Parts: sequence; structure tokens; C-alpha cells
Amino acid sequence: MTDDERHARVALARIIEPGDELGGRWLREFGAVEVARRLVGGGEPLPGASAKRWEGLRGRVGRVRPERDLAEARAAGARFVCPGDPEWPAQLDDLGDSRPTGLWVRGRPSLRIWALRSVAVVGARACTEYGAHVAAMLGSGLAERGWVVVSGGAYGVDGAAHRGALGAGGATVAVLACGVDRPYPRGHTQLITRIAEQGLVVGELPPGDHPTPSRFILRNRVIAALTRGTVVVEAAYRSGALVTARAAQRLGRFTMGVPGPVTSGLSAGVHELLRGEAVLVSDAEEVAELVGDMGELAPDRRGPVLPRDLLEPGARRVLAALPGRAAASADEIAREAGTAKDDVVGRLYELRSLGYVERHGDGWKLTRQAMISVRGDRKEC
Amino acid sequence: MTDDERHARVALARIIEPGDELGGRWLREFGAVEVARRLVGGGEPLPGASAKRWEGLRGRVGRVRPERDLAEARAAGARFVCPGDPEWPAQLDDLGDSRPTGLWVRGRPSLRIWALRSVAVVGARACTEYGAHVAAMLGSGLAERGWVVVSGGAYGVDGAAHRGALGAGGATVAVLACGVDRPYPRGHTQLITRIAEQGLVVGELPPGDHPTPSRFILRNRVIAALTRGTVVVEAAYRSGALVTARAAQRLGRFTMGVPGPVTSGLSAGVHELLRGEAVLVSDAEEVAELVGDMGELAPDRRGPVLPRDLLEPGARRVLAALPGRAAASADEIAREAGTAKDDVVGRLYELRSLGYVERHGDGWKLTRQAMISVRGDRKEC
Repeated sequence: MTDDERHARVALARIIEPGDELGGRWLREFGAVEVARRLVGGGEPLPGASAKRWEGLRGRVGRVRPERDLAEARAAGARFVCPGDPEWPAQLDDLGDSRPTGLWVRGRPSLRIWALRSVAVVGARACTEYGAHVAAMLGSGLAERGWVVVSGGAYGVDGAAHRGALGAGGATVAVLACGVDRPYPRGHTQLITRIAEQGLVVGELPPGDHPTPSRFILRNRVIAALTRGTVVVEAAYRSGALVTARAAQRLGRFTMGVPGPVTSGLSAGVHELLRGEAVLVSDAEEVAELVGDMGELAPDRRGPVLPRDLLEPGARRVLAALPGRAAASADEIAREAGTAKDDVVGRLYELRSLGYVERHGDGWKLTRQAMISVRGDRKEC
Repeated sequence: MTDDERHARVALARIIEPGDELGGRWLREFGAVEVARRLVGGGEPLPGASAKRWEGLRGRVGRVRPERDLAEARAAGARFVCPGDPEWPAQLDDLGDSRPTGLWVRGRPSLRIWALRSVAVVGARACTEYGAHVAAMLGSGLAERGWVVVSGGAYGVDGAAHRGALGAGGATVAVLACGVDRPYPRGHTQLITRIAEQGLVVGELPPGDHPTPSRFILRNRVIAALTRGTVVVEAAYRSGALVTARAAQRLGRFTMGVPGPVTSGLSAGVHELLRGEAVLVSDAEEVAELVGDMGELAPDRRGPVLPRDLLEPGARRVLAALPGRAAASADEIAREAGTAKDDVVGRLYELRSLGYVERHGDGWKLTRQAMISVRGDRKEC
């Protein structure tokens, strides 16, 4: 990915709306630099767009300000990740021409590596106490099993899932339908800020951009594509969470639902899913059991681990701070590595995705395969 | 079925326990008369039984008293129905050698005809209020759609399902694990008596016989075999209701489960079923939709109805009492036919099974096919 190409994609992210398949086709056929030249620079219209459509897109050119976007993002601790970048999650390519132009990513860990071992937990905003309880249990239970919990940062089920993961010292990703520097909903400012510290806040929209109803809906395809599977916890008929679940289904991801009382309208949408191809799950163990079997996106869990010298220095430092055999808490590892705990947690989940470490409850330990390779050259680290 | 054969089966029902496959094999290979001659009369042992087993069976010969059993049954308003009888439900033959020796049947309607359009609703004895509510809703909802509700007469889900059907002026069958003259549990004496008046009380055990743990378990295969499908409403792990569901599955019947909160141990068994091949159902409509598609046990619902002159006089009288086009309540039909309401309800569900009538809410009306054939010769009835 050349700098020009990245720059062009930053510019185009202000013109092409999330999920616009015609825009995606242009990017694929002509490349971002040429699309930007024609759209921003006022070149010959690209094929497939009506005159009206082209004018509509051209009407947004005034918004383009790539330098400022990158500066604002940097100020908010965010980076721009686009197809071809080392941090780009390859799973998103399954979206075809509706693949995001790029993603703004706020937080320390590698989105690509975290996404390898992630599960989406989504559901109703106006959930019941039961829904909030189950979402929090799933969030913490998945975190304790070394899984990254992805959700939409919304009130209700989303928030409870994020909080469950955070509370268990776990990894969580909020995929927003607005700029990542602009927490939405406002009432979740503190939660989203905390996620950006301990996890990742991700979105397609450039800094400062607002959510709209269609952006909420299209955000859901990113959640579905990023993860190995989607669990729906409470959803009325026509709930947005069902859009995520159906997108997951279309993308060949696992689709799961947590049942509830048939007398509750907030479980009706989930039950509809469960009458189709979705799998009923009752707890984090059942979720982990199901998605853990899907090997194609993950490194072979029984095979040899990645060579240590491919790891970034930060990850190598954390790996070296783990005891030889015993388990240690994230706090202990942070002390040993001389790094902030949030940074250590991020690295530990990266190392988990890559097969070096495992989480058991509150403790982290080397995997059997990692034990030999790491012990041998511990002094080098 | 000769009188000797029936008589022999009445005798053998006191010796051969429900579900005894060796006994079933003997009945199939040698016929009831010969099996009774050897077992009761003390002839040469039948093949496949150890000396100890044979002695055990012979030890029960003292209990044999067919005349008294038949007399006691008659006094309790019960009849003995065995394979080959016109009232024998052919579905029970799917049980192979564990087919009941015979069934004691208390109540007016034809077991065979009612079973054609029946669904089992079973579940935990110690159910929650939620479970009782859902069972009652299913019982009434199925009854209102013209389905016969079969259950085990127990406390909890069973009782609620029976009561729901009775309350909706519907058809219900209690399959007991004891003599049909001996309501069990005692606390359900009034309920079971009411079922015998408005519906049917059925069992394999001879008059006066007691339930045992294994008889409860084996009773469940009769519920599963008799019906087109089994719905489980609340069941803990290892619940007897799951035995019924698995039997239904093995017999190729529909298996359905009503979900509940994953935080409830009484839904855990149901959720386990739903993670297998059972279908999630939320209400009577979904149950009826599923089992209504299974045509093989039912007369073709779109084909011509049975010739009227094959109906019993009682059923013909009720059929003649229905208005030509409009719907009428069971009360109105009873007045018109000059018969007791309970008798009319029994007949109406028979006529429903045979395709003559339909129930819509509280009203009964002729089916389109029946309308022409019946109207023409109304005067004859």
C-alpha cells in the first residue's frame, strides 16, 4: 500500500458511504488513487453511476480534508488502517465490494491479530435485566477463555458485553457507526474511553462524523465479518442485532442465539433465528466450544507457534515476562515486564491469538508448544 | 383378534411388564394364546429367557385374573384395547417388540381416531410458574386448533397442559403409569376424573396396579409413539420428559422444545434438546404448523372425506347437528344433537381427525369437502 493510495482512501472515506458497493467496485477496478483523481479532482465519471449519483458524490468533495482527518485521528490516539496494511484484518475482504474503504482504529493492540480470535456479542438496546445479565456473563466468560469480545458500544446488551469483558480484565472491541473520536451514545463516553485504553475502538467513519440509521445498520456487517461468530442476546423482531446475525450467516460465520422466555418480546427475534440455522447457546463455554472448532481463520492450535522473531518488540517483552511453567496474572506480568497493565492485556490477547499463551480464569501461561521454544532463548529477549 | 387372544392378553398384562421386549417377541412369534398357555399354564419355557427370568415371570402367575380385571375395568368405565382391535392406534406398532400388550382405555372417544391428530405436551413436575403458564397456553391453543393434547397426568407441566385443553373445551388424553381406575398422583384425582369424562385416560397397567419408577419411564414411550410430536416445556437435565422426547426422536416423530431463561435449571434440559435436533417452538401456532405438515399418519386433508356411512351412529348424529355453513359452539351442537356436551366434544375431535370438521376458536364448522357431501343427505341422518 503506497502512501498515495492510503491518502486517497482517507480522502474517499469522506465521500463513499459505508457499504457502498459501487464505490467498492471502483476501488477494486481502478485503485484508490484513480478513483480519488476522478471524484475529487473532477475527472471523467466512473462507470455504473447515474449522472445524479455522480453529482451526489461530487457534492461531498468539499468535505475532503485528509491531512486534517489524519491529524485529528492522531490527536485522538487513532490510526487509519486500510486494505494491504499489515494490521488490516483479512476477514473483512469476505465483504467483497462492500468492504470498508478503511478503518479508523483507536487503541494499542493489533486489530488484525485480535480479530483472529474474536466473537461478537450483540443485542437489544432496551434489553431486560436478564439480557444485560447474560450479556455480561458472556463478555466475562469469553474474556476468561482468551476470546476477544466485539460489540457495537450501544446501550443495553452491547454495553453489558463490553463491561463484562473489561471487568474480567479482558479484550474487547467496540465497532462504532461514527467517528472513533466521538463516542456514541454520549452516555457511553466513559465506557468507550475505557475500551480505547484496554481494547480497541474501531469505525469506518472519519473523525467527527455522526451516526445515521443506515450507518448503524451497515456497521453491523463489519462486526459480523470481523469475528468468527455472532451471538445474539435478546432481540425483538426487526432488531438491528438480527441484521448482524444474518450478515454473519451469509459470511459463513457461526450464528448463535441465547434463548429466553417465549413470553418476552425481546427474545422473539432470537427465537426466530434459533428456528433457522442459528445454534442455541446458554453460556460462554458453549460459545467457545462452537467457534473454537472453526480453524480456518486461526493459526493451527496444535501446530508449531510462530517464530518469535516475527513478534513485535512489545509482544516479545510480554512473552519473556511470563513464568516458565506456572500461570501469572496480568498484574504480575506487567510488573515483570515493566509495562502498563492495559498494554500487557493487549499483548497477551495478541499472543493468545497467535498460539503462544492461554488464559485460564485470571491466570495466563505459556502453551505447551511455546514453552519449549521460549524457554530456550529466554535470555535473548 | 379372537376372544381367546384378547383374554390371553388381559392375563399376560399382569405378567409381562410394560416395554419388555422379550415378552413382545414371544407375542409376535407365538401369539398370545400360546404364550399364556406356556406361562400361565406351566408349559415348556419360551426361547430366550434364562431359567431365572422364566421363574420370575412364572412367579407372577398368581396375579392373573382376567375376568376380574375386565369386570373391574368395566366398573370404572374402562375397556381393554389390544393390537388387532378396531380402536388400536396403529402408531403404537412403531414400538416393535416393546409395543404394549394392550391398553386400558377410560372415556368415550375412539383412541385410534383421536391419536391421529394428537400432540404430546410434557415436562417437569416441579415446574416454574413460567412453565405452567406456557404449558396451559399450549394446551388451550392446540385444543382451539383442533388438536388432541396428550400428557402424563403428572403435577406441573402435564397437569397444566391437560387443564389448558379442558378449559378450552378441548380434547386431552392422560397416559398413566398405573391402572386407569387408580388416578395417580392422588392430588390429581379430580383432574383425571374430569379427563375421563371429557377425554381419555389410558394405560398399560391392569386395574389397581401401582406406578413404579421404571413404569413411569416406560409410559413415556407410549406418549411418544401415540402422538405426531412431543413438545417439552421445562425439563432439568435427566428429566423424564427428555426420555419422551428422545423416544419421539427415535420413532421419527417431531420433537419440540419451549426455551426459557438460560439462568433457569428447569430449562437446561430443553436447551440441550434444542442444541440437537429438536425444533424451538414459542406457541401453539408454531407447534400446529410443524406437526400439521406431517401427513403420513393423517387422512389426506385435501382429499375427499371418509364416506359418512363408515361413521358410528353417534358421530353421524353430531355431524348432522352442525349448521350447513356457519360455525357453532359445542354447546349449540349438543343442544341440536340432543346429546351431552362431553360426548359431543369427543365426537367433534374424532370428526376433526377424519377431516369432516374444523375448529376455529370456540366455533366448529364443516370443512369445505364435508359441506357438499353432508348437505346433500342431511335428511337421512
